[in-house]
Amino acid sequence: MTKSSISTDVAIIGAGPTGLFAAFECSMLKMTCVLIDTLEHVGGQCSALYPEKPIYDIPAHPAITAQSLIDSLEKQIEPFSVPRLLSKTVTTLKGEKGNFTLITQKGDEIHAKAIIIAAGAGSFGPNRPPLDNIEQFEKAGNIHYYVRYSDQFIGKDIVIAGGGDSAVDWALALKDKANSISLIHRRDRFRAAPESLCRLEQAINEQKINKLVPYQLHALRGEQGCLNEVDVISLDGEIKSLKADHLLAFFGLTTDLGTLKDWGFEISQGRIPVNQTTLQTSQEGIYAIGDIAQYPGKLKLILQGFSEAAMAAHDVYSVVYPDLALHFEHSTTQGIPQ
Amino acid sequence: MTKSSISTDVAIIGAGPTGLFAAFECSMLKMTCVLIDTLEHVGGQCSALYPEKPIYDIPAHPAITAQSLIDSLEKQIEPFSVPRLLSKTVTTLKGEKGNFTLITQKGDEIHAKAIIIAAGAGSFGPNRPPLDNIEQFEKAGNIHYYVRYSDQFIGKDIVIAGGGDSAVDWALALKDKANSISLIHRRDRFRAAPESLCRLEQAINEQKINKLVPYQLHALRGEQGCLNEVDVISLDGEIKSLKADHLLAFFGLTTDLGTLKDWGFEISQGRIPVNQTTLQTSQEGIYAIGDIAQYPGKLKLILQGFSEAAMAAHDVYSVVYPDLALHFEHSTTQGIPQ
Repeated sequence: MTKSSISTDVAIIGAGPTGLFAAFECSMLKMTCVLIDTLEHVGGQCSALYPEKPIYDIPAHPAITAQSLIDSLEKQIEPFSVPRLLSKTVTTLKGEKGNFTLITQKGDEIHAKAIIIAAGAGSFGPNRPPLDNIEQFEKAGNIHYYVRYSDQFIGKDIVIAGGGDSAVDWALALKDKANSISLIHRRDRFRAAPESLCRLEQAINEQKINKLVPYQLHALRGEQGCLNEVDVISLDGEIKSLKADHLLAFFGLTTDLGTLKDWGFEISQGRIPVNQTTLQTSQEGIYAIGDIAQYPGKLKLILQGFSEAAMAAHDVYSVVYPDLALHFEHSTTQGIPQ
Repeated sequence: MTKSSISTDVAIIGAGPTGLFAAFECSMLKMTCVLIDTLEHVGGQCSALYPEKPIYDIPAHPAITAQSLIDSLEKQIEPFSVPRLLSKTVTTLKGEKGNFTLITQKGDEIHAKAIIIAAGAGSFGPNRPPLDNIEQFEKAGNIHYYVRYSDQFIGKDIVIAGGGDSAVDWALALKDKANSISLIHRRDRFRAAPESLCRLEQAINEQKINKLVPYQLHALRGEQGCLNEVDVISLDGEIKSLKADHLLAFFGLTTDLGTLKDWGFEISQGRIPVNQTTLQTSQEGIYAIGDIAQYPGKLKLILQGFSEAAMAAHDVYSVVYPDLALHFEHSTTQGIPQ
């Protein structure tokens, strides 16, 4: 991978839905920008964790899968040819408003007048169960911490572990595709939407889902590197062996803000306090939007991130063009570049 | 038209894009609501004034016409069967938080616990030129103050009057459809986006648009009730007769907040100051969102209205269900009713 040296108006850290729309808003205001993300693809958690999941509250999209949302946002910024630095993590930030330098773990340098942080919960990874030889089955593709494409489970024996929305939703989503589904939780009760719990109860009664509670994962067994069985253990030590081609383990995410913590602005409980109107952090020229931003009454909704992207871009304009008053234009009069 | 008496959780005044999305957000939070609008259709100015106009900054819609935006928003609230009171203007508001009564000009009564005002610029109508016998040609459908469907102008002789975006944009949009286009303005210069002005200059040079400045509308003439000619007059009294099947007059809108002014909350320069976090007005239980709402840094963008709708609905929840803490749910875990 080549090292880049880029000069731009705005460096956008995080290429999830909010970061992508920030690139659109900056471009519409004739500011250049780059998108930087730790992942090897754009779309953040939408693309990495739940691309097939339908989302219902994106305005004017009665239902859209997470990946289609990302695809549409990419299409929206296509006319602007925004450069992307993917698989790149910003490790160092230097300088000040009007003249920042960001350095990635790979030595790329980005010079920017302003910075918009749209980093969601930070970089993220799954909590992995502490089982012997789990790496071996991870490599074989038999262990899943999130589900990108569900068709791989058609006709298979599946063990799902976890007690939250993801475990319940995927058990329900796969019950008519898989050959068998065992749902394991170390407590008696699942935490999920009331309607989902009703549907789970029904699927258990219809013997489409085999519920084992309270049980924990105990061991993985297989042949020639491929998973065959998952052993689960009850609180009093009883062990059951379950036939399993795949294990889906939903124990939540570990998130990490990385070196963001050392960049000079305030951080409170893993989030960045901002001015609600400008989205500026406690450091001038650095903005935060989307899930990582915090202000009174903040809702963690994708559509809030979109609106924050617009507000931040309008304030960033005064940093990039300090001598110009922003002549505000409606999108319907402005058009996009031909 | 029958008089209604309705009891609901939330009365939403204004059924433009922001009001429609407020109905969605209220419904997702299990609050009942009704939509009330002075127009005979939903969609506000989007549907009434520029249904065919493309909008570029709705997130995840690279380009969408105003009417398609409204259609999508309608589809999004379809599962909730939200009642609509159309061609109804609220004239009286009584009561207080938890117990409001709204009365329309037709005598309908709406009882609501909270009110969300999404009234845009208020009710609106065109500024009409003071010409003799204009009503006759209005009735014949030869005078247009906005263009809902442009195909009616194919092969026709068109006179367009006005100096702003609408006059310039429609002259450009119709130049290859109409038989002839005359563009009249009482000043020398047009106010429009720089790119549009370039294209206008080019179309004038190519003799696709006949520019007459500074001229004003002077008289309308026709036979059997149908428009044939428009006379225009220069500052020094020179009169020219232009062949015309249609006159498009773009002299701006008159807007009217109506009796809103008397409902007890603060109004400042035609807009309603709100708390930026809750969108509540100075009167408890009454909220304002979209273009009519005012707070520091407010952007008049449709996408801001969407985000305000979500924030307002979350705060309204505490009015409708004062004993329940709002257990916040992401749309992806909540789903829509089956």
